[in-house]
Amino acid sequence: MADDTAAILIIGDEILSGKVADENARFLIGELRALGVALRRVLVIPDVLDEIAAAVRELSERYAHVFTSGGVGPTHDDLTMEGVARAFGARVQRHPELERLLRVHYGERLAERDLRMADVPDCAELVRAAQTQWPVIAVRNVYVLPGVPEIFRRKFTAIRDRFRRDPFHLACVYSRDEEGRIAGHLDRVAAAYPDVAVGSYPRFGGDDWRVKITLESKERARVERATAELVALLGPAVHRVEN
Amino acid sequence: MADDTAAILIIGDEILSGKVADENARFLIGELRALGVALRRVLVIPDVLDEIAAAVRELSERYAHVFTSGGVGPTHDDLTMEGVARAFGARVQRHPELERLLRVHYGERLAERDLRMADVPDCAELVRAAQTQWPVIAVRNVYVLPGVPEIFRRKFTAIRDRFRRDPFHLACVYSRDEEGRIAGHLDRVAAAYPDVAVGSYPRFGGDDWRVKITLESKERARVERATAELVALLGPAVHRVEN
Repeated sequence: MADDTAAILIIGDEILSGKVADENARFLIGELRALGVALRRVLVIPDVLDEIAAAVRELSERYAHVFTSGGVGPTHDDLTMEGVARAFGARVQRHPELERLLRVHYGERLAERDLRMADVPDCAELVRAAQTQWPVIAVRNVYVLPGVPEIFRRKFTAIRDRFRRDPFHLACVYSRDEEGRIAGHLDRVAAAYPDVAVGSYPRFGGDDWRVKITLESKERARVERATAELVALLGPAVHRVEN
Repeated sequence: MADDTAAILIIGDEILSGKVADENARFLIGELRALGVALRRVLVIPDVLDEIAAAVRELSERYAHVFTSGGVGPTHDDLTMEGVARAFGARVQRHPELERLLRVHYGERLAERDLRMADVPDCAELVRAAQTQWPVIAVRNVYVLPGVPEIFRRKFTAIRDRFRRDPFHLACVYSRDEEGRIAGHLDRVAAAYPDVAVGSYPRFGGDDWRVKITLESKERARVERATAELVALLGPAVHRVEN
């Protein structure tokens, strides 16, 4: 498992039923890319304990980092902590520091039930950050984030620097010719540069260019060589190159 | 497996790397809800043959309908048909009717390579619809749709009526009290009506109400009874009810 891979697990009936449009995966996709982290999976599942546990276990085994969104409040449909605990054969127990933070935050408004938000897997780590009084709960390589978008963003932003890796380098070549006509050239470059991700995206209805080709890798020199080779193969079909 | 469950499989490096924001899952979530279909999974994976095959196989076994998006053009990164074939132990072969449609559509612009878009699993079914000359390719319960959003929408819309089921009924109760204070009442209603999905969504920063509670089922009478019971339990905490 490369140390720069990641998966996003969105837990929430409200997303699957269309009551709320996902904002957190959308935000995190951009963040991870900017950090040089290779996102390999986005998975949206319902508020069902066994499904949460199975998804957390599988994603945690396959990818370096897993970020969950949702299911961390005090109500019956907040099952993420229990699911993460079950994924790792751990128990959920009340964490004294989280209980203290909740008591300070809520003051007299605290309902007994709010203390559920201090119940975390017994192997949880509290990841602290200067920008926020609330730590992020992590269990092994799984970071448990809340579903409310403002809080999701604030918490991720507070810990984002720990995920920074080498950046991706991207070049884009725009082809006047359609995909079917240039596919052989793309085959050659993709085969010669297996370490460079070559993507081909047609556009319908444009006159000046018809396919956007992306070439991407963490090695800038490899992207440049692959791009030069593709440009030479495409010849007059090249509309423009960006890198 | 209930006959009204579904999964969406988005195949595309461009989504995971943030080059393109997903539009197809977002569109289909709303469509499936309106059709009375219970969406249970959205999964976004890269353009990798084995991952496509494994995801198609698993989702096809677990859910009544699977909709894939992306990976169906003529280039090296278009691996969906091969992945679907592999999922079912089928072979990919050229389909005469699809070849004929491609020849008519492209005319002299046809490149030999464009005919790859006529290569489909040997057990594929062509689902025809009055609104479009292009059939949708289906393999068992898997509907293979293209990634380009306009075409994705057009193709799904052409076949959508075959998925129509009984509608969902939804009620919303808005609580002035915070989640921690009403969680016990939600527990009672959720336990008494296991066939009604009860969701609890806090809002931060509003003054008039602080939690939106959703109650949902295909049985209108059950939603109404569960809602009445919850409203009675919440008493003066109820800000308003929508159904």
